[in-house]
Order: sequence, then C-alpha cells, then structure tokens
Amino acid sequence: MSAGDGALAVELVTIGDELLLGFTIDTNAAHLARTLAGVGGRIVRRASVGDDAAVIAAAVREALDRTGAVITTGGLGPTADDMTREAIAGIFGRRLVLDAALLADLEARWQKRFNHPLPPSNRQQVMIPEGAEVLPNRHGSAPGIWLEDAAGRWVAMLPGVPREMRGMLADTLLPRLQGRLAGAAQVVRSRTVRTVGIAESALADRLGALARTVEGLPLAYLPGAEGVDLRVTAPRLPPDEADARLGAAVEALRARVGAYVYGEEDADLAALVVQGCRVRGWTVAVAESCTGGMLGMRLTAVPGASDVVQGGVIAYANAVKVRELGVPTATLEAEGAVSEAVARAMASAVRARCEATVGIAITGIAGPGGGTPDKPVGTVWVAVDVAGQVQAARAVFPGDRHEIRYRAAQAALDRVRRALDGQAAEPPWTTRA
Amino acid sequence: MSAGDGALAVELVTIGDELLLGFTIDTNAAHLARTLAGVGGRIVRRASVGDDAAVIAAAVREALDRTGAVITTGGLGPTADDMTREAIAGIFGRRLVLDAALLADLEARWQKRFNHPLPPSNRQQVMIPEGAEVLPNRHGSAPGIWLEDAAGRWVAMLPGVPREMRGMLADTLLPRLQGRLAGAAQVVRSRTVRTVGIAESALADRLGALARTVEGLPLAYLPGAEGVDLRVTAPRLPPDEADARLGAAVEALRARVGAYVYGEEDADLAALVVQGCRVRGWTVAVAESCTGGMLGMRLTAVPGASDVVQGGVIAYANAVKVRELGVPTATLEAEGAVSEAVARAMASAVRARCEATVGIAITGIAGPGGGTPDKPVGTVWVAVDVAGQVQAARAVFPGDRHEIRYRAAQAALDRVRRALDGQAAEPPWTTRA
Repeated sequence: MSAGDGALAVELVTIGDELLLGFTIDTNAAHLARTLAGVGGRIVRRASVGDDAAVIAAAVREALDRTGAVITTGGLGPTADDMTREAIAGIFGRRLVLDAALLADLEARWQKRFNHPLPPSNRQQVMIPEGAEVLPNRHGSAPGIWLEDAAGRWVAMLPGVPREMRGMLADTLLPRLQGRLAGAAQVVRSRTVRTVGIAESALADRLGALARTVEGLPLAYLPGAEGVDLRVTAPRLPPDEADARLGAAVEALRARVGAYVYGEEDADLAALVVQGCRVRGWTVAVAESCTGGMLGMRLTAVPGASDVVQGGVIAYANAVKVRELGVPTATLEAEGAVSEAVARAMASAVRARCEATVGIAITGIAGPGGGTPDKPVGTVWVAVDVAGQVQAARAVFPGDRHEIRYRAAQAALDRVRRALDGQAAEPPWTTRA
Repeated sequence: MSAGDGALAVELVTIGDELLLGFTIDTNAAHLARTLAGVGGRIVRRASVGDDAAVIAAAVREALDRTGAVITTGGLGPTADDMTREAIAGIFGRRLVLDAALLADLEARWQKRFNHPLPPSNRQQVMIPEGAEVLPNRHGSAPGIWLEDAAGRWVAMLPGVPREMRGMLADTLLPRLQGRLAGAAQVVRSRTVRTVGIAESALADRLGALARTVEGLPLAYLPGAEGVDLRVTAPRLPPDEADARLGAAVEALRARVGAYVYGEEDADLAALVVQGCRVRGWTVAVAESCTGGMLGMRLTAVPGASDVVQGGVIAYANAVKVRELGVPTATLEAEGAVSEAVARAMASAVRARCEATVGIAITGIAGPGGGTPDKPVGTVWVAVDVAGQVQAARAVFPGDRHEIRYRAAQAALDRVRRALDGQAAEPPWTTRA
C-alpha cells in the first residue's frame, strides 16, 4: 500500500514491557523512521505493546489490516517473555517449527564462545513460523524473521537491541525492501548545516527571504549548546529531485550565512580544529578555568589528537592561575578572574609553557552562584594566542552550568577555527599584539 | 478500567509528524510511563501518529474504546499542523469554543514578553472543546485540556515539549488522577543501587542466592561506563508493600555488595567525591594524559567545586609530562608513558604543584591506535596521592575511545572515594609510600 504520496506505507510495532514501563526510551522507532523515509518508505503509524501474546497479535493484525506492511522490534530473545514469534505466527495461521540450520549455528556459537552446550531454553530462538524466512543477525544471537502471506502482506520481525536492529535493517531488510521501495517515487530526506556564534534571530535576519523556505523546502532552526543547526527537509519528492533541491538549498544557505557555517550533518567543531591545525603543522595548548578541562577533553576526544594537542593547565583556583600561568595577582585583584586581561595572560602563558603554536584560554562564571550585576552568570572571556598574536572575546551565555560551560568551549574552538581560516579579525573580536 | 492487576489502565497517543519521521525521539512516552507506574497507573498500549486529524481521531477512539482513559502529547500549538484539539473534540461530539479567560491571559503575555499584540493565528491555542477543562501550563503558552464524557471516559491532552509536558503532569494531571489512582491498589516502583569497580559476573557471584531475585523482586543488571547499576523492581504491588520490600531489597544488596556500592538512583560519583573532600577539608588536583581533561571537567561540573578543586595539568604529550610534572625522561623511556611509575610521578607532582591534599593521575591508551600486545587499547594506570601516600592501580577497560576514557575517569574518582572511606588498601591496589 502507498502512503497516499507515492511512499511505501509501513506500520511499526515496538514490543516489550520495558518500553511500556518507561525503563527504555524507544530509540529504534526514530532510527527506523528516518532510515525508511530516506529511501521511499514511510512509517504512518506506530504502536508499542508489552510482552503479551494477545496484545501483540491484536496490534500487528490491526496494522496489517491498514497497510499490509509491518515492522516489529523486540520479543525475539530466548526467554519466556519473548512472544513475538508465537503471536505473529498465530495471525498468519502458521505453526512454529525448529530451524535445523539455525540450531546448529547457535550450538556452535555457544560451544565456541562460552565453552558450554546450548541451554535447552535457548532453543526457543530457533523456532520459526512455518514458511518464514530467516533474517541473519550478524550482531547477536536472535535471528530476525520475514513472514509474508499469499496476498503479499508482510511482517518483518527485528530484534530490540538497537545495535542488532540497526545492523539487520541495513544488511538485510533494506535490500529486501528495495523492490517495493523502487516503485515508491517519493522520499523524505533532509540535510543539516551547522552554525556557531550567531543567534537564531540573527540567522533569520541574514537569511531574509530564505528564512522560512529555501528552494521551496521548509527550513527548521535547531538551537543547542553547539550552535544553531539549520535543517532543510525535502518532504516527499522523487529521490533525484530531493537530492538536487537539497544540494541547491545547502549552497544557498552557505552563501547567505557565510563564515558562521562550520560544517554539515554531524560535524564536530573540535575534530575540524584538530584537523585544521594538523594540516598547518600547528600545536595547541589549553588554559581552562570555568570549563575545568572540558575543552581539553573535547580536543583529545578526536582520535589521533596527539599530533596536535600538547596539553595544558586547568587553572580553576586563582592560586593556580598565578602560580602555574604567571597571571599577576594585581591583575586578578583589579580586573577579576573573569576579565579580558586574565584571559589574554592565560592564553599566552599556556602557549609558552607547552611550547605550542596556539594557546586557548577560557575564564567565566558558569553558575549557579558567583554572578554580579556587572558580570552575570554566563559571562565568559575567551582568548586565543596564535604565534604571539592574541585575540579575546566576551560573551554572556544562556543556560544552566553545563550549557554555559559547553557553549564556552564551543566558542573557544570557534575562535581557533576562524584563526585557521584567516578570519580572526571578525567582530566581536578585540585584537592586540 | 483496571489493567487486570489493580492498576489504572491508560493508553498513550503521542502526536506529531516529527515523531513519525524520526526527527524527534519520543522521550515523553518513557517519562509518562514511569511516572504513572509509580503511582498506580499503567500504560497498557501506546500509539504514535502524525499531524492528521482523521488518524489522530481514529487512534484516540480505539484507545478510548479499549480503556476509557487516554493521555495524548503534542499537537496543541498555534500552527495549522496542530490538530489535536479539533480531532478529539470531534470524537466527543463537541464544538471548539473560544476561552475568554485564556485569550486575555495569552494577549497579556504577548504584550509583556514581546511588546506586540497577539497574532491572530495564535488564537487557535485558546479554542477549547465545549465542556472541557483547561489544564494550566506554567512552562509555556499552549494549555492542556481535560475532556470527559458522561460515562466517565476521559482524554487528557498535554503539550509535546518535554519540559512543558513534565510540568503539567506533575502540577495538574497527577493531582487530578489521584482519586482514580487511589482505587488502584497496585504500583510499579523500582530502586537502583549503583556500583563501580566490579564486573557484572562478579556481582552475580557475590550476590549468590540474590543474583536473580531479592526479597522476591526481580533484579536487573545495567552495565555502563559509570559501572554496573542494580535495579530492583516491585511489579504491581500495593504502594506500602512495594516500598517496604524495595527498602529491604536495597539493604540486602548493599550488605552483599559492600564497598562497591557508591550510591543510589542518579548519584554522581564526582559529586560524592567533591562533597567528601569538602567535609574533610581536602583539596584536589588532577594530572591527565589520555582523559585530556575529562576528570577535571567532571569534578568541576559539581556546583561549588571551587572549595575543593584547585586545577591541574593536562599532560597529553610526553614533553608536557616531563616539563610540567617533572616525570623523568628516563622513566618514560624505560617504562613507557602508560606505566605505574609514570602515573605515580604525575599524581605526586600535580599534588605538589597545586598545593593540594590529593593528586589524581590517569595515563592510558584510549585507542583506536596505540595498542601493543603488552599494553592493549584500554590499558590505564590510575594513581592517587593522598598527603604523600601514593596508591596505583591498573585496568584494561573495554569499549570505544569515549568509553575507555569515561571508565578511566570513573575509576580514578572511585579510588578517591575509597581513600575518603579509608578503604584504600582494597585490592587490586598496590601501595607504596
């Protein structure tokens, strides 16, 4: 059946008491939905039910009656709670039969992995509805099952463990659905452009006529601690047209938004900075007060960061700023720890101590306490010293303690990105040699 | 209607194209489920549908026919996509009427907040089904709605924004459901005991006869980068009995597991360490290699950490270990950077430099590269110097780069926790003055 727009309409039934008790957040549903939408399928409705054979059967039957195409997750394991096979076999009027090849495989695995014969209770996992096809599971022991009737109505049963579900979807189910999806002319695809250092309202101003739709495609603003992401979505178009219009939309967004764009999709600013520094042969050192190590952590989260990141000083207490970074006590007393002068001194000192090309410093008030009328919670000074050229910027970030710290680290990374791109003089920088 | 176990059976319908396209992960469903289960309700089935009035109406009608008790989330905003009010009013045969009090309130808000009269399109938010009751929204502008028919069948419409939904649930809906829930004798409640430094299988061995059920309640093992959490669940018991048995179960678990337990529920090991140090008047400094600042970040994530945390050195490059922490080049060459000698030297040096009571050091191989047969990826040395008494421990952690780093930081915190508790000599520590 079509979703009324050329897409293959599919219903999703996620199974497990854990879901209904709220112990597990259903991330499978979103992953399946995005993946299918991108290739011409569409989840038109979703149900979650507990480990109860009658309720599973009712939900799957209703979904089959509406669309003839159902994906389930969960309930395929070896315990008595796992009722998916039995419930769905019942709908199709099939018996469960032992799959000899699966049994041999499972027995071999147990012997190899646990050096132990297969416990009898685990045989349940290899009971398959008569006439069903097995969907191999490369990432776990419970196989998936494809069951289809003479009228072409089908149920694909996938495991509930997200890693296993994702693997089986990509390896086995999507290739199998390709014939059905090829007839479906419409896909939903989206692309995301990541910005940093500019507010949502300022982005909308810059975008002007493109603020709500780009190339006729709707634009969503997704603000977060890493910046504002711009997501443009092609809703139900033929794949080639979707890709062409998304490509044009991304170009148009990049052209208008300019240097505030740092990447697309899942781009990580820390990884871009490490890569940019590596290309130029720059090394980096950090001096962190309010972020307490978060900037160093983000930079060293990048595999292979050791080419670039030397290390640095966590100067949380003022005594450490004085002793380890040589910040003058008089400056601390006159200007306060959260000040341009202290940020600059920290950046230059850590650069010198670690013999790095770039020194990055952050000092701020992350809250919840410590704010004053002049320097409210969220006030942060960032300074970057690139080969002796020091720049500093001040911001007042919104959010709670974690968000303020995260935004501060992101802003510091952004300053290095701009320095790498030779855009260091952009406002609101104050530059001094 | 009862769920067949004394609990109030409720169905949940979550509404929004974003959910079916997979752009949003449905966290509301889990929160509602846990909250209701804890007070004698039970989500017996859940559906997610798009922004389509006919489909919303069908899903809510089916759910009402089954249980007579339905909670919806989403679709209450001011745009044309928001169809929940209209669809559900139709099921109950009610018209939408303008609520004058809500309108006046919304107009006043717009004037105050945006200094702008209310746009006409936003009036949709104050159209309420005739005879419905408004559920006030303290956290946003779209009110919730309670609609009940003569037979006592009801639908509670909550907003989709998680913060608003949670606020309205706690402030308004739960008190309103209290009468219905009081008749329900059964709740599902759980408690969690958090452990660190012990594997799942070793925990099960220690628990012995309690490994699967404690006080007759099922026990779940939830391993993660912070350690293994033990969750015991009271499934469908009267509230007093549930609490009494959970209390006894937690005591029994604590008695068997002993010092591996660091807290309950959402306890954060870094917060416990900061608090413990504060009580004893201890100050802390960190020296981090492979974690690159993560330990410092975790300690300074605790509000008010500045009483305790002095700062430290991120000694990622060996040159920084030598220059800033005085690790002898000969030791680095003879033992390697990931070694007991280097960890000990780092801990003592950072303690001295920052004039702290405690110095904590981490050095390891987070991968994906850099492993050797002797020191595979995941090998980590942790050392803690408390007032000149140094202890060190080695571990090989599983997982990817992030997990290995997180486990290393957690292990280091755990060593300080044990030192605070006077349990510093527990294996697998090697102690040397």
